[in-house]
Amino acid sequence: MRESAILLIHCPDRKGLVADIATFLYRRGANILHADQHQDKQVGLFFMRVEWDLDGFGLNEREFREQFRPIADESRMDWRLEYSEKMPSMAIFVSKQLHCLADLLYRRDAGELRCRIPLILSNHPDGKELAGFYKIPFYCTPIETSGKDGAETAQLRLLNEHEIDLVVLARYMQILSPAFVARHGSRIINVHHSFLPAFTGAKPYHAAFQRGVKLIGATSHYVTAALDEGPIIEQDVTRISHRDQVDDLVQKGRDLERIVLSRAVRWHLENRILCYRNKTVVFD
Amino acid sequence: MRESAILLIHCPDRKGLVADIATFLYRRGANILHADQHQDKQVGLFFMRVEWDLDGFGLNEREFREQFRPIADESRMDWRLEYSEKMPSMAIFVSKQLHCLADLLYRRDAGELRCRIPLILSNHPDGKELAGFYKIPFYCTPIETSGKDGAETAQLRLLNEHEIDLVVLARYMQILSPAFVARHGSRIINVHHSFLPAFTGAKPYHAAFQRGVKLIGATSHYVTAALDEGPIIEQDVTRISHRDQVDDLVQKGRDLERIVLSRAVRWHLENRILCYRNKTVVFD
Amino acid sequence: MRESAILLIHCPDRKGLVADIATFLYRRGANILHADQHQDKQVGLFFMRVEWDLDGFGLNEREFREQFRPIADESRMDWRLEYSEKMPSMAIFVSKQLHCLADLLYRRDAGELRCRIPLILSNHPDGKELAGFYKIPFYCTPIETSGKDGAETAQLRLLNEHEIDLVVLARYMQILSPAFVARHGSRIINVHHSFLPAFTGAKPYHAAFQRGVKLIGATSHYVTAALDEGPIIEQDVTRISHRDQVDDLVQKGRDLERIVLSRAVRWHLENRILCYRNKTVVFD
Amino acid sequence: MRESAILLIHCPDRKGLVADIATFLYRRGANILHADQHQDKQVGLFFMRVEWDLDGFGLNEREFREQFRPIADESRMDWRLEYSEKMPSMAIFVSKQLHCLADLLYRRDAGELRCRIPLILSNHPDGKELAGFYKIPFYCTPIETSGKDGAETAQLRLLNEHEIDLVVLARYMQILSPAFVARHGSRIINVHHSFLPAFTGAKPYHAAFQRGVKLIGATSHYVTAALDEGPIIEQDVTRISHRDQVDDLVQKGRDLERIVLSRAVRWHLENRILCYRNKTVVFD
Repeated sequence: MRESAILLIHCPDRKGLVADIATFLYRRGANILHADQHQDKQVGLFFMRVEWDLDGFGLNEREFREQFRPIADESRMDWRLEYSEKMPSMAIFVSKQLHCLADLLYRRDAGELRCRIPLILSNHPDGKELAGFYKIPFYCTPIETSGKDGAETAQLRLLNEHEIDLVVLARYMQILSPAFVARHGSRIINVHHSFLPAFTGAKPYHAAFQRGVKLIGATSHYVTAALDEGPIIEQDVTRISHRDQVDDLVQKGRDLERIVLSRAVRWHLENRILCYRNKTVVFD
Repeated sequence: MRESAILLIHCPDRKGLVADIATFLYRRGANILHADQHQDKQVGLFFMRVEWDLDGFGLNEREFREQFRPIADESRMDWRLEYSEKMPSMAIFVSKQLHCLADLLYRRDAGELRCRIPLILSNHPDGKELAGFYKIPFYCTPIETSGKDGAETAQLRLLNEHEIDLVVLARYMQILSPAFVARHGSRIINVHHSFLPAFTGAKPYHAAFQRGVKLIGATSHYVTAALDEGPIIEQDVTRISHRDQVDDLVQKGRDLERIVLSRAVRWHLENRILCYRNKTVVFD
Repeated sequence: MRESAILLIHCPDRKGLVADIATFLYRRGANILHADQHQDKQVGLFFMRVEWDLDGFGLNEREFREQFRPIADESRMDWRLEYSEKMPSMAIFVSKQLHCLADLLYRRDAGELRCRIPLILSNHPDGKELAGFYKIPFYCTPIETSGKDGAETAQLRLLNEHEIDLVVLARYMQILSPAFVARHGSRIINVHHSFLPAFTGAKPYHAAFQRGVKLIGATSHYVTAALDEGPIIEQDVTRISHRDQVDDLVQKGRDLERIVLSRAVRWHLENRILCYRNKTVVFD
Repeated sequence: MRESAILLIHCPDRKGLVADIATFLYRRGANILHADQHQDKQVGLFFMRVEWDLDGFGLNEREFREQFRPIADESRMDWRLEYSEKMPSMAIFVSKQLHCLADLLYRRDAGELRCRIPLILSNHPDGKELAGFYKIPFYCTPIETSGKDGAETAQLRLLNEHEIDLVVLARYMQILSPAFVARHGSRIINVHHSFLPAFTGAKPYHAAFQRGVKLIGATSHYVTAALDEGPIIEQDVTRISHRDQVDDLVQKGRDLERIVLSRAVRWHLENRILCYRNKTVVFD
């Protein structure tokens, strides 16, 4: 796999933005692999993701940042530069249900998710054996012994020690404190087992059964201070019928949860997601 | 098409119900075409739909009702008997958007919906030409001239005169009064342009756009006094992306609305739907 | 609706293509509304669709062609320039089944399809009344009277007289001659009632029923001399079960056919489709 | 979980079948948990699946077989009796790609698949570690050393020793000999990585890419002597675009393969599938 750089931009829209950026890259020898742009006309914003081959590109990271900054500043760009060679560090939080954890670990192993997973955290011991199979350190911080605050303090210390770039809540059943969320803003992905905004909060499959819906869903989203209200990354649904009891919903839902969570994690790791106004642009 | 009878039952579950009903029909010469039963174990209820060929069946409607009643009473059955030869009468209510009306009229003509449509009602003149093409009387009761109460009174009188069995709200943008709903309970089908219970109320596509969902939906349901909270009959969704503006949602949603509404109407006309506890059993 | 121009390009890939095109447009005052590019790395091809607002753009069509040609020639571009103000002319061919025709006419009326429909052609009289409702001339050229060759000659003359840009086969059950196809290459869209390449040829629903598939599909594609083998534009599927007989497949399939055909027609009319190597790039 | 019995029947259709079977069961104290029947009118066949609680049921297996046989013979029934307490034995065949194996093992562990898995067979060593994690014996019979015939002989001996009820080919890339298939007829489930009957044979994702389809699929089916032509159990599809290269199809396809294979295995283990005329009835 060849090394590439990715530039993510959003800024007020104006004429000539694509020309400016494409020309800047071309003059420095960039061979563009993918480029995608988007305009939200209602709010007058421009979004771009461009990825280029580093082979033959004339600038290193420091030089790029120096030379691109004036252009970015002039157009009031919010921008991010990423290098594919840098492997992000991902921590997975889990409780007793392990299907999402098992899925993420399998996909990382199969090469679908490009990241390191230096640790798995839980408030229950259930995931220990699975973590062991993949040779990943497993930390159990039971809430019963250390309290919710104590558990979070321990968790934050571990994330810090391991320089974690992305936290994935793989059916972690605890609500994170606002302080925790603030520390890892836009870098915590959760999966909620409903088609948001329907059935927020606890026991969404029970609520869906009660309401008599004909499709159930799952949603992956970035975590914000407001529960189940962060920017949605991906959603999917599956059909149910009157024959399905709550247990069937739970089982069918597990497949959805795995799929929407793993897609969100992959897109985040591939730097395909831009957040704005509590929404996401997912470049394909 | 041969004539058939359909029996719809729900009652407390007990041993031997299927045997009793099947034996009752068999002894009177019924050739069963379809039979489907369902148990809701949580609430201990039994549901059944059975359809049989009338050719060779020994009872007429009056005789059936007389002979079946004791069995039904003993098992505390809620039951309904329908004959395929009886064509139900359906009234369609519409406003300015005509895609669902056009779809229903086309499907009736193509033989997908087995019913008569003696009239179309609206508070706007827009549907008149389309109704004319299908030679269906069109009544316009503008709310501006007669007021909401006056319009409903006129509508109820028309439904009564035409002995309407089913009212379909095909993107009719008015809220029916509780009195109207009470008069036609469980026989009014509406389409709501969201994946209920998400985005109830007005302008659901705007709300969906605002929230940044990745799928939009539509829901057909029986109308109850509580707005958008009646028993759900059918739902479907379609994928959207950040490229879709509100107008695109509206356009993509129209295809969903047509499909979920026409399915609900067909299932109702084929006597496939049983309601209980604000949910539906849809026999397939 | 403001007027815009659309440029569609495909050519061998090289560094700097995006920069060159974006700069060319920017220097002439183009405000880019949408731009999307794609690379097929296996075959080394570059594809681009760019749409810009004509308000403030400095060139008329002749000037654009003159000034852009040298750049295009240098990069061996295959390119096409379209103006949104030019309404394409579409002819619809139909037989006895009218659901796709009804759908296309409705969508054109509702503003979903931006085109003129100066004529409808058929080898049966069934669509006459529907055409009349939309005030579109209907030409019936029965094969029984004029023979297949005679019918085609008459049809080609009509298409020529009306300067037709796009021919849509809306469940037209005749196979066009190679000569006809050659005359309208890449400008004939057909809908086939199966998930191609499964079940090519006649009676695909019967074949699907026979094979016992669990999903049925429909496919819209450009017509080429090889039957059912042209570039695929869109496909969709729906679930069936053992309960569905051939008639049910036919009915469920009609909804699929409508949707895949109308999407293909819309994308074609919006100049979103590029063909190469018997495949399509559909820019979204 | 309470013990239940399941009766699967297919036979020529006649009046009174449901009454006879329901009455037979009721008179012996059966509390019916699920019953579903189906008629294929084209061929005049009747299908039924009935499941009842053994608590309070008056017959043991031998008595049931004795007393039911006369009824079955009279109606020329093809019938099967299964007891939920009997855990079926399943063998999994695998090659180098392990995603389906990992999925099946996880689901068995999570309680979704009710079976024992006494052995995993492969012609490559890749699955050994995963089998070890789940403590399942892993037998590697490389074709290089023992030849295809030798490998099959060893495999058949192992299946025999372990009294295997169901063989699952979880992306096993070898074609089984007709003799092997004959020995385990209707008890071998395979997953093919295309939407059958499209793209039979080797490298279906390459073929799908080449043809330019807009959806890719996967199919689970019973294995017969004719390659990729056995009765289809389940199929599913996912959308692709021109942006997807063959590698993307392979990755997206893996999720489909897992889902269609695991559903087929679960339905088989729950005795929901009846085969006839190279098709399946899957009772839900």
